[in-house]
Amino acid sequence: MNAAQPMTIAGLRAQYRDGTLTPAQLVDSIAARLAAGDPHRAWIRPLTRDEMMRYADALKDRDPASLPLYGVPFAIKDNIDLAGIPTTAGCPDYAYVPQTSAPVVARLIAAGAIPVGKTNLDQFATGLSGQRSPYGACRNALDMRYASGGSSSGSAVSVALGVVAFSLGTDTAGSGRVPAAFHGLIGLKPTKGVLSTQGVVPACKSLDCVTIFAQTTGDARIVFDAARGVAEDDPYGRAWSPLAGAAGPREARSLAGVRLGVPRTAQLEFFGDDSYRTAFDAALARAKAAGAQLVEIDFEPFLATARLLYEGPWVAERLAAIREFHAAKPEALHPVIREIIGGAARWSAADVFEAFDRLAALRLQSERVWSSIDAIFMPTSATTATVDELEADPIRVNSRFGYYTNFVNLLDLSAVAVPAGHCTQGRHAGLPFGVTFVARAHEDASLLGLANAWLGDGAARSEAVLSGEDANARARVAVVGAHLAGQPLNWQLTQRGARLVCTARTAPEYRLYALPAAPGAVSKPGLVRTAEGGMAIEVEVWEMPVSAYGSFVAGIAPPLGIGTLKLADGALVQGFLCESAALADAIDISDAGGWRAWVGRRSETADVQP
Amino acid sequence: MNAAQPMTIAGLRAQYRDGTLTPAQLVDSIAARLAAGDPHRAWIRPLTRDEMMRYADALKDRDPASLPLYGVPFAIKDNIDLAGIPTTAGCPDYAYVPQTSAPVVARLIAAGAIPVGKTNLDQFATGLSGQRSPYGACRNALDMRYASGGSSSGSAVSVALGVVAFSLGTDTAGSGRVPAAFHGLIGLKPTKGVLSTQGVVPACKSLDCVTIFAQTTGDARIVFDAARGVAEDDPYGRAWSPLAGAAGPREARSLAGVRLGVPRTAQLEFFGDDSYRTAFDAALARAKAAGAQLVEIDFEPFLATARLLYEGPWVAERLAAIREFHAAKPEALHPVIREIIGGAARWSAADVFEAFDRLAALRLQSERVWSSIDAIFMPTSATTATVDELEADPIRVNSRFGYYTNFVNLLDLSAVAVPAGHCTQGRHAGLPFGVTFVARAHEDASLLGLANAWLGDGAARSEAVLSGEDANARARVAVVGAHLAGQPLNWQLTQRGARLVCTARTAPEYRLYALPAAPGAVSKPGLVRTAEGGMAIEVEVWEMPVSAYGSFVAGIAPPLGIGTLKLADGALVQGFLCESAALADAIDISDAGGWRAWVGRRSETADVQP
Repeated sequence: MNAAQPMTIAGLRAQYRDGTLTPAQLVDSIAARLAAGDPHRAWIRPLTRDEMMRYADALKDRDPASLPLYGVPFAIKDNIDLAGIPTTAGCPDYAYVPQTSAPVVARLIAAGAIPVGKTNLDQFATGLSGQRSPYGACRNALDMRYASGGSSSGSAVSVALGVVAFSLGTDTAGSGRVPAAFHGLIGLKPTKGVLSTQGVVPACKSLDCVTIFAQTTGDARIVFDAARGVAEDDPYGRAWSPLAGAAGPREARSLAGVRLGVPRTAQLEFFGDDSYRTAFDAALARAKAAGAQLVEIDFEPFLATARLLYEGPWVAERLAAIREFHAAKPEALHPVIREIIGGAARWSAADVFEAFDRLAALRLQSERVWSSIDAIFMPTSATTATVDELEADPIRVNSRFGYYTNFVNLLDLSAVAVPAGHCTQGRHAGLPFGVTFVARAHEDASLLGLANAWLGDGAARSEAVLSGEDANARARVAVVGAHLAGQPLNWQLTQRGARLVCTARTAPEYRLYALPAAPGAVSKPGLVRTAEGGMAIEVEVWEMPVSAYGSFVAGIAPPLGIGTLKLADGALVQGFLCESAALADAIDISDAGGWRAWVGRRSETADVQP
Repeated sequence: MNAAQPMTIAGLRAQYRDGTLTPAQLVDSIAARLAAGDPHRAWIRPLTRDEMMRYADALKDRDPASLPLYGVPFAIKDNIDLAGIPTTAGCPDYAYVPQTSAPVVARLIAAGAIPVGKTNLDQFATGLSGQRSPYGACRNALDMRYASGGSSSGSAVSVALGVVAFSLGTDTAGSGRVPAAFHGLIGLKPTKGVLSTQGVVPACKSLDCVTIFAQTTGDARIVFDAARGVAEDDPYGRAWSPLAGAAGPREARSLAGVRLGVPRTAQLEFFGDDSYRTAFDAALARAKAAGAQLVEIDFEPFLATARLLYEGPWVAERLAAIREFHAAKPEALHPVIREIIGGAARWSAADVFEAFDRLAALRLQSERVWSSIDAIFMPTSATTATVDELEADPIRVNSRFGYYTNFVNLLDLSAVAVPAGHCTQGRHAGLPFGVTFVARAHEDASLLGLANAWLGDGAARSEAVLSGEDANARARVAVVGAHLAGQPLNWQLTQRGARLVCTARTAPEYRLYALPAAPGAVSKPGLVRTAEGGMAIEVEVWEMPVSAYGSFVAGIAPPLGIGTLKLADGALVQGFLCESAALADAIDISDAGGWRAWVGRRSETADVQP
């Protein structure tokens, strides 16, 4: 059972399509595997064969092609509700049986996925080690002497062992990324709120994210798309709006030219771990060889934010989440968790407001970095550790894992942890090493694209492109008349932050008309494509944020509209067209070659200018 | 000096333009007026004639028409920095002399405005009464027996007395609105962060807003436009983005058809003040007579938020802002302020996180209201009070003023307090009564438009319309073919949060064509307006946030585009049109009456469905 046989969504889909596998067969094989034991302590409550089979049965009449996760088995961190199965959050005395599944789980099941069980975690998702659980310290799937990473320990292990194709974790300070790094997995820590945290036991409610562990970036993207959605009554829910991230990295097909921000050498920290230091050096060399532009950044605002989280009053948010339970049964807590959460008492209300003010300043400082880079590129964890080392010094060793992760949610960033080969030197040689790409909120898809380019496997690319989102962070529009630079309506462009891309001519397939104007109104031309007798007409191509394009289009009055123009070089661009039916009283001015030329000609012949 | 002679920006501009006034003459007259005494205790530190004259001198070579605030005198609440003049925040021991002006002040001066002095306030902007100042309780400009309202007391009084044309206040829980109501002024409480709070002594840093007192909505808009701007190094700064407020009220030219949300009768509170109750009844009748649609709303989420602010841990944010000073010199505080801020000690860090969680839930609840109304319409203050009444019971009487104001900044809303005539009955007969329009963030201009329509004076309209922003918070688009409900591309609408408004028919001026489709591609129709022989074609009108409309349009491929369609009832709506030049190989299917009918007809006649 130690040998990991990766299971992928793409692989399962092929088997279902070919008829070489049914969901019932898969459930039988998973049940048999779970029955063979759980030496890694990955599971708190695996589902029984019958429980799983009910989900498989529900797929009987469904076309495998019609459901993106048809028959795909997944694991659920045991702080996320699955209907009818206890949620423990790693604390038996806290357990309750939810009547309904968390919305994020319900969405995956509706997409065809089959839940396999609830996984082990650091109690109340407090930790990065995977060792703080009364259900047993979770062991690394690749080397049982090592820690699994946490808090989403069992979710990572269940994927790494090939029991499931993907799993759900949660992440407040790194819990969805560190275990991915320790297992050579993709760990998608999406934009806060985009995967609903309803039905999730809170750690820090304002920071918690549901995360995805998967074998490939493509699988992570499929799960992300199926899992997304704002749940009703979710105060922390946010609609995914990748278009809003105007300054973020584009969907990358390779790392060539991508600007990766790397902390200054003095700000890199490996806590004396030469295995990790040399592995990161190798990763930097690999990124550079792939064409990435490595940009040294000042990491201090990020580090200061990370310190603020773990040395500041946010621990009181963990207390707030379980306040009544903590007051009633303090002895029910794992000793390490009790020590940590007990620390909340020393913080006052004024301390919190001071910390929020400090965070606001750090956020502003940190944001400056995004003008010069497309993503931060850094180790996921600064080092790893054995189970023995963690037991000897549980808080300090654990904190090392969070050096590069703690700041991400406080700064409202998205992140993808991704494998970067293995350590080749030092005491951790042979263990996987992981890096993380970080960008602003809503850049999840872009980061998966970068991660995919980094891996060079092409697996995620098709999904990312297919989704079609984020493809038009800026919109281009060819203008013909009153919107040209210097003309009366040009302010409608500049007001929206539009910039002139180029002056161009259309393909010789158009005619330009001066439309009759009401007295006092701005004169306008109408451009119409013709089947024959067309000419090349001068246009200007402007570019603006796509979020502003809608209001621009909405303000266009008939008979004008927006269609697609063919330029002289064959390129297509959206631009102003006119309804042919409106040309009865219009003057054909195509011979002028463009509106500006015609306006100039007209004013020369006019005696008096208005 | 008690007789208020309103000074307006428009009036001053006319005098400067006509040459009947110079800035130096104005400074002389203001200096003379200030020298005559300050029985209302409006000023903490009026500028000397020479200090003012330096600003007037700087305008000597400037064209009055080139500066929006050329020679316009204004007052500054004494928690906002003016270079070289002490900032006291109403606490002499706290005072410091700033080297530079707050960015918002610097912007106004750069726009030509002349600072006249620093005004009295409730100490540390803590209060709504205007009475909590060691510089003297600020008296109402219209009746000295009455409180001025606070905390921006002197700023309101200086405008009401006609000493200045406008003034800056601040507002955390109502301080920019209550004094406006008590003086019959416009009080613009803009979207949080849009006017920089750099160089402002914080009250609750995460909630504070700089506000504008003015005589007209037009003046408020001019000042708002000049004062706006994100200051460097301001963690709380936000760019004004009126287009982002997708669900907000439109720029109103009248109240006709505007949906005003009014709290249920049982949720209205006047603390036994019949003057105010009858004045609000009259305001409702007036709004209704003006054509507004009064919509009863559940005010409880707003009231619960208001209670959360004043009964919850936010007082600790006030402490955090002056923590060192408070620890070093507690005796320097006004007794009432000392009592209030002393209350911060009883709140723990966990209390703050619990309150934030509660606020998140209340925010979600409160947001539901915006789908059915354009703005909330309510009293600005629930009642007024004499100075004697406030001295007798300073905290409880003060709190009544905040019943309708406390929730606004916590819920990130914008608000405009506006005069609503005078009380005609009861003991406050003859005093002004005020109402407030409230909407979501970034709806400042829309609210000024509503306020202007309410006042019916037309003064602000031109500016608001000229700006052209915020005109299309939601975009409508008529779809004809593959985007119809149930058709293959409908997801492009629903994915953007679009909803179906109605099914309609075009005016009988169109023809519909089935366009030739590439193998495997979605079939599409093309709608074209014709000069003659047109028919009525079935369309669906969908509505989406204008911010999403751009990406929708950007995805439309030739020969289709977006133009304006005329519907059967004569209404115009943007929608899909097709280039006439693309119809050579298309089939005219107008007889079917619509795409859906034609697709149905076609599948009936086909032997085999794909």
